[in-house]
Amino acid sequence: MKQTLNVIKIGGNVIDNPSMLNTFLETVAQIRTPFVIIHGGGKIATQMAIKLDIPQTLIEGRRITDKPTLDIVTMVYAGLINKNIVSKLYSLGKTAVGLSGADGNVVLASKRVHPTLDYGYVGDVEKVNAQFLLLIIEEQMSPVLCAITHDANGQLLNTNADTIAQEVAVALAEHYEVSLIYTFEKRGVLLDVNNEESVIKILTKSEYTNFVNQGAIHSGMIPKLDNAFKAIDAGVSNVKIGKAEQLIEILNDEEGTKII
Amino acid sequence: MKQTLNVIKIGGNVIDNPSMLNTFLETVAQIRTPFVIIHGGGKIATQMAIKLDIPQTLIEGRRITDKPTLDIVTMVYAGLINKNIVSKLYSLGKTAVGLSGADGNVVLASKRVHPTLDYGYVGDVEKVNAQFLLLIIEEQMSPVLCAITHDANGQLLNTNADTIAQEVAVALAEHYEVSLIYTFEKRGVLLDVNNEESVIKILTKSEYTNFVNQGAIHSGMIPKLDNAFKAIDAGVSNVKIGKAEQLIEILNDEEGTKII
Repeated sequence: MKQTLNVIKIGGNVIDNPSMLNTFLETVAQIRTPFVIIHGGGKIATQMAIKLDIPQTLIEGRRITDKPTLDIVTMVYAGLINKNIVSKLYSLGKTAVGLSGADGNVVLASKRVHPTLDYGYVGDVEKVNAQFLLLIIEEQMSPVLCAITHDANGQLLNTNADTIAQEVAVALAEHYEVSLIYTFEKRGVLLDVNNEESVIKILTKSEYTNFVNQGAIHSGMIPKLDNAFKAIDAGVSNVKIGKAEQLIEILNDEEGTKII
Repeated sequence: MKQTLNVIKIGGNVIDNPSMLNTFLETVAQIRTPFVIIHGGGKIATQMAIKLDIPQTLIEGRRITDKPTLDIVTMVYAGLINKNIVSKLYSLGKTAVGLSGADGNVVLASKRVHPTLDYGYVGDVEKVNAQFLLLIIEEQMSPVLCAITHDANGQLLNTNADTIAQEVAVALAEHYEVSLIYTFEKRGVLLDVNNEESVIKILTKSEYTNFVNQGAIHSGMIPKLDNAFKAIDAGVSNVKIGKAEQLIEILNDEEGTKII
């Protein structure tokens, strides 16, 4: 039987709140099985862009990563946030290794091509270097990946942290029984978006299809859940979605939505 | 016989100049024996502090690393510069792993204590985790260390890159025949600071003592050279000091000052 490994995406609301992040990492440090952390930058990069007077371009509601914005996200994600997480985890007894996708070529991506829209330096994941992650994990260290990747030609790329988490989970599923955990500001997948008590505890593919057909599942959740089922089809044991403050309960299947 | 390994400190003048940095990394990528890169942030962190309106405090000519300044150096060194170096090296055929001292606890430091002066978040190196560096090097990857360390209690610290280079060189000397290379803007240790032709090609301890007693060696070079001899006393095979643009010639003992 394979050992359990948790791939944990830290929600943006946690990154934005230093005391919440500390509490979250204290919980993470109690996990006795191997884990991998994935994070973006919450609102810190946006605040930095404002301070530096770098205008943020939105096209069709999507943020464009121009060169100055790429430099900001690289500084904030791979520098400020990543190194503070790693240093904090060490103080809690866990040796971590903070990585961008360029380090050890751990997440190779390609610049997004879109017929009408130039997203700028945005990358879509091509390949995860599971061997390098395993090297770290087998040394009892925990990889902490930020949402910066590279294209193998010297170009860093801004990449969706949810997608990196999914691809990392899939890449490790051959070697571990992988549980992929998305933490965010809600208690789980809600049947009624205004009612925090309406958490769906277990969600199978056929139930999900029914809920979507009934229009019961909130539209913003659909890409997240589509990705979750893709991860399961690719070998991930389960995907859990829940509130960051309830990480322990999510790990123990007492809170959140478990997708199987 | 042990294999040669080069520990190369990139000078601030190279970091400040993107085309010079690219050329430098192209040269580095041609090295066939293992290497470790160490870098600080040149003037980029200072420029960022000006842009962000963070006043830089100088006490007795020393820059104080207050909390906002620590955040800036963490962003610039561990994020922007480190990840761009790693990504560029990969495009040149070398898999690198960018690290702060917190990653894998690779450089543990302690906050500097001074009887009258508070340097802020400045760290002095306590211990280098050679095992973690060896793990990376033995996988044919190259560690790229920035001048950020940590104190094991969750605090990141700004640390002198020259000192990190020296301590890393010493820590690896048990396993490799280590050559420690400091690149900067001069052709080497000059007997006459105004004459670039006055490079001392080979410098032994007794010659150095004589030069210092004669007042021939420039005062700014003395701490650098004291450290170089300390490294040699601790097992490093040689220390080379020279112009960044002449890295290949320095490696081949055709340029720069070689301290033995």
